[in-house]
Amino acid sequence: MILYVLKDRADYSILIEKLNENSASFKILNLYGKNLILAWPDQNVKGIIDNSIEMAVEVKKSYVLAGNDWKKQPTVVNVKDVEIGSKKVIVAAGPCAVENEEQVLTTAKAVKRAGASLLRGGAYKPRTSPYSFQGLGEEGVKILRRVGDEVGLPIVTEIMDTRDSNIFSQYVDMIQIGARNAQNFSLLKEVGKLGKPVLLKRGMGNTVEEWLQAAEYILLEGNGNTVLCERGIRTFEKSTRFTLDIGGMVAAKLMTHLPICADPSHPAGKRELVHSLALAAVAAGADMLLIEVHPHPEKALSDSEQQLTPESFEVLMNRIRTLARALGRDA
Amino acid sequence: MILYVLKDRADYSILIEKLNENSASFKILNLYGKNLILAWPDQNVKGIIDNSIEMAVEVKKSYVLAGNDWKKQPTVVNVKDVEIGSKKVIVAAGPCAVENEEQVLTTAKAVKRAGASLLRGGAYKPRTSPYSFQGLGEEGVKILRRVGDEVGLPIVTEIMDTRDSNIFSQYVDMIQIGARNAQNFSLLKEVGKLGKPVLLKRGMGNTVEEWLQAAEYILLEGNGNTVLCERGIRTFEKSTRFTLDIGGMVAAKLMTHLPICADPSHPAGKRELVHSLALAAVAAGADMLLIEVHPHPEKALSDSEQQLTPESFEVLMNRIRTLARALGRDA
Amino acid sequence: MILYVLKDRADYSILIEKLNENSASFKILNLYGKNLILAWPDQNVKGIIDNSIEMAVEVKKSYVLAGNDWKKQPTVVNVKDVEIGSKKVIVAAGPCAVENEEQVLTTAKAVKRAGASLLRGGAYKPRTSPYSFQGLGEEGVKILRRVGDEVGLPIVTEIMDTRDSNIFSQYVDMIQIGARNAQNFSLLKEVGKLGKPVLLKRGMGNTVEEWLQAAEYILLEGNGNTVLCERGIRTFEKSTRFTLDIGGMVAAKLMTHLPICADPSHPAGKRELVHSLALAAVAAGADMLLIEVHPHPEKALSDSEQQLTPESFEVLMNRIRTLARALGRDA
Amino acid sequence: MILYVLKDRADYSILIEKLNENSASFKILNLYGKNLILAWPDQNVKGIIDNSIEMAVEVKKSYVLAGNDWKKQPTVVNVKDVEIGSKKVIVAAGPCAVENEEQVLTTAKAVKRAGASLLRGGAYKPRTSPYSFQGLGEEGVKILRRVGDEVGLPIVTEIMDTRDSNIFSQYVDMIQIGARNAQNFSLLKEVGKLGKPVLLKRGMGNTVEEWLQAAEYILLEGNGNTVLCERGIRTFEKSTRFTLDIGGMVAAKLMTHLPICADPSHPAGKRELVHSLALAAVAAGADMLLIEVHPHPEKALSDSEQQLTPESFEVLMNRIRTLARALGRDA
Repeated sequence: MILYVLKDRADYSILIEKLNENSASFKILNLYGKNLILAWPDQNVKGIIDNSIEMAVEVKKSYVLAGNDWKKQPTVVNVKDVEIGSKKVIVAAGPCAVENEEQVLTTAKAVKRAGASLLRGGAYKPRTSPYSFQGLGEEGVKILRRVGDEVGLPIVTEIMDTRDSNIFSQYVDMIQIGARNAQNFSLLKEVGKLGKPVLLKRGMGNTVEEWLQAAEYILLEGNGNTVLCERGIRTFEKSTRFTLDIGGMVAAKLMTHLPICADPSHPAGKRELVHSLALAAVAAGADMLLIEVHPHPEKALSDSEQQLTPESFEVLMNRIRTLARALGRDA
Repeated sequence: MILYVLKDRADYSILIEKLNENSASFKILNLYGKNLILAWPDQNVKGIIDNSIEMAVEVKKSYVLAGNDWKKQPTVVNVKDVEIGSKKVIVAAGPCAVENEEQVLTTAKAVKRAGASLLRGGAYKPRTSPYSFQGLGEEGVKILRRVGDEVGLPIVTEIMDTRDSNIFSQYVDMIQIGARNAQNFSLLKEVGKLGKPVLLKRGMGNTVEEWLQAAEYILLEGNGNTVLCERGIRTFEKSTRFTLDIGGMVAAKLMTHLPICADPSHPAGKRELVHSLALAAVAAGADMLLIEVHPHPEKALSDSEQQLTPESFEVLMNRIRTLARALGRDA
Repeated sequence: MILYVLKDRADYSILIEKLNENSASFKILNLYGKNLILAWPDQNVKGIIDNSIEMAVEVKKSYVLAGNDWKKQPTVVNVKDVEIGSKKVIVAAGPCAVENEEQVLTTAKAVKRAGASLLRGGAYKPRTSPYSFQGLGEEGVKILRRVGDEVGLPIVTEIMDTRDSNIFSQYVDMIQIGARNAQNFSLLKEVGKLGKPVLLKRGMGNTVEEWLQAAEYILLEGNGNTVLCERGIRTFEKSTRFTLDIGGMVAAKLMTHLPICADPSHPAGKRELVHSLALAAVAAGADMLLIEVHPHPEKALSDSEQQLTPESFEVLMNRIRTLARALGRDA
Repeated sequence: MILYVLKDRADYSILIEKLNENSASFKILNLYGKNLILAWPDQNVKGIIDNSIEMAVEVKKSYVLAGNDWKKQPTVVNVKDVEIGSKKVIVAAGPCAVENEEQVLTTAKAVKRAGASLLRGGAYKPRTSPYSFQGLGEEGVKILRRVGDEVGLPIVTEIMDTRDSNIFSQYVDMIQIGARNAQNFSLLKEVGKLGKPVLLKRGMGNTVEEWLQAAEYILLEGNGNTVLCERGIRTFEKSTRFTLDIGGMVAAKLMTHLPICADPSHPAGKRELVHSLALAAVAAGADMLLIEVHPHPEKALSDSEQQLTPESFEVLMNRIRTLARALGRDA
């Protein structure tokens, strides 16, 4: 396959003609303000030149759009006025699960005061056990929307079913794909079509390459507003819930132009570890953090072991800010 | 939680009254011809006795319906006239992907002749890379249906999207949940509601316990026709594509009443290994095998490295049959 | 590097001269009755021809002697009169740890009666915790020797320290390298020098390739009497103690001429799983099994959960024999 | 088991009498200036009280001495005048393998100038392949000694064989146990007896608990000068050579009083990742770093892909120092 990056405002009708003459297949996209054409198979495409082409990239990897062969400049994803992938390390915080409006409001005010830029919270909850709290669903999304508007924080929450895309399109600022749906390709295509910013978690059993390929499904629908989120992988080690793969996160940063987020809460499993993992992720170059905060973690309906209190979160935000500045960033 | 297994044809209206009086929540199910009531929370349920109750099981695991605390007898899943979980080791065979009618027909005739009981083939294909062949979709399902009817083999094929449930309901005999959707809980609930036999693959990053919990999602919708399929997990070892977890499969058999299938093709990755893994799975107690066969593996649009030729499949069927008989089974 | 397999009884002095003239380094070995010369670096060796050379193999892998590029025929390792790697599936059985002479004698008689060909037992015990029973050491080896002689079974036991090589040289028929010393290269070289048959376990964190490289250390000292033993690898799955890598074992068989053993006891961790894993290993092509048997498993000083009773072992031996015969082997 | 921490200078002869009267077994140790008695079995020990006892700790874990139930205060390990586990983050740097005196001297001067406190270098090299450079052995140790003395840096290097303990005792300041010998219990006991500071790497297939148990073997010989070193574990991810388990390192810090080191070079596998992993480890609380530096990495006889140039190391040291200060430490 060849990726043609076209010159700005160039007329590419002649190029299309040439592709047709050579019986090549192709797909036209617009990403980051650039017109792109993916064309294949190689033998029908090789040698084609045209005035409209700024750069032709031979695609050997299966994550060409998510990869940085064609786009060296880091991508900044905007969620309303929040810039992810810029100088400031962005923190999204909030409860694991939306339980009721008061809980979310209390948390939202606290995390905003401490310096969070986004409000997170689960409405549709992918629970390993069918007997665990399954979330408030649509009602939970609406609570997040109301609280986000009241407090002034854009909201990020997880989608689990392609049939819910209208709800997410209407109410949500940033759509999360959870680790368990990291290779639910129907869902990836669907959020690609919605065009809204996406927070794409890495599957607990997925390689870095598969994570970028999952992002490719989204970008291929024309949605470049994708942030990758490392949240820990499955390994033999059981002193933590999952193994936060800092090395994989850094490796991904070398392979992609997309911003990278780390979730220190899920791999920690225990509150005592969240601070250290969050700081490690920032030191390693994370552009964003996703942190679970609950006004009363011990009463939480899910993940009670790993959610921070608002007080502990404030301490952490101060530590993150100090660290970020020492690294020439901000938070 | 408490699981009440009710006496056959017993009137349980008084039990419901008692549960209501105690402000208990409950869910009524019918599984394997038995009326069941799940009731919670414990403090509101404990001590309730009623004439309609045959057995009360205190639920500590999160896979109570899939577990064998309440049902010692192995479940036999019927796919049309094929019995999975009985004396005969059932083999489902066919191409990785449905490519065209002729390919499927050739394969179906060959595998039936060699002794396969089910025809498998992928119509909706979950591909790691968006640039790989994504399957023929609905058209592929219809091809399978026509060929299955012509040759006389029930068909098993994979669903990827809740929005496709009508197609599967109409055309498919056994619905496969693939490894990448092993924790797509919306999809699990949906196939639970359809009621058709389900072949539930274990996720490549999932524990045996999570696999049983995934099955629980299906059973909790009243669909007990579920077969568990081990297909290899992610480990550090790379001489095989995945690590077929024979030990996990045996451990699962000790925990559940559901039949267990093994897929030796995906973990093998290489044709040379498929025979040995298939035989190992049968020796370890697998009730069913899922094997990829293609008339011309080297030309296959997917997984060309691991699909068997019809000739090699016939040799394998003979070896499986000999082995099964030595173990007191059949194939 | 080039491996020269020399003609039988050929004078290779001229070849040595040529190597010296080209300033090549080389190492002369005798393995399986063949004279071999390993010579390097490539640029100094390429092009050298000599009458004494039967075959010249360019070495790209780092397990050339253990690999089957130069030796297609499977190796049979003789431990006294026991042939490992031939038609008969060889079973070594005995207690996890040597506790006292009576315990070993009772076990030895029982396993011999049931059909075991070798007596196993740990004298030097590599225990994860320093507070666990560390074995009887030299006294344990002597107990094994006396019992082995009395009952008429060759003995296999584990070495842990290069300083103990004299004891093993004097008393032991087959020297085991345990999983925790699978990359203790000093110990590998030492048992290579002793020349006695070696049972080399795969490390719980080692790839198949690393396992073969470990064997290469032994063969490079001129000791070709090496049997590879798969005993389970570390994965995220915890329903078994380790994950018996049947696929890796089969992959290894395709890469080496050495016989392969499987240890179903350690990965099982639980008695109920040992039978199924043993049968699976035989079905997949194992040449040998290593099984823990104890007269009173519940009183064992180590691994009490996974040792079989003599009665259960007898049942297993009968099942193994039936299975082996169905596969065209014996046991 | 019970651990008695005795009062300073207390006469414990009466306690010993009481233990003997109760037929208890016991072991007397002196660690960190404290007299300790380990006594067992529980039923013979429980209830014993004595004036000499400052604290009695019931041992449920198998890493009681390495654990922090009895010793809350972090241990500082002194290697000559270098304090590991204090405010300053200590960096040990040097080549993967000692190749010749000039190479080591050049590196040592450069790393000292940049701020390293210890000189590292491999003399005995545990190489996966027997065909890889195996190190200079004793001669390599002597080179390190001479260079360390000339430049004024204590040296740390790896031991592989119990038979080499005299050489290490005579020439080496800190003895490293490598990942491949992390459960070579004979070697652990031997370095315990030598009493010199030990740098104990975690095995690539070992849990955090097993790592602490390995340390326990050393402490149980009376050697408390042990530093734990995380160097990456085996997982399915292959974009890095090993997965640096930052979470496991933090978990270990919560379980032990021993200082913790991180080796960012081995898991990185690639130079580009070393900086980020080093910074992440410091942010997560590492007390020490072990970093490979070579004057000409591309010409190195081992690990050429991951060794830093002296220039890159200097940049890294500056970044580490800035980060450490932001965290209230120094480097």
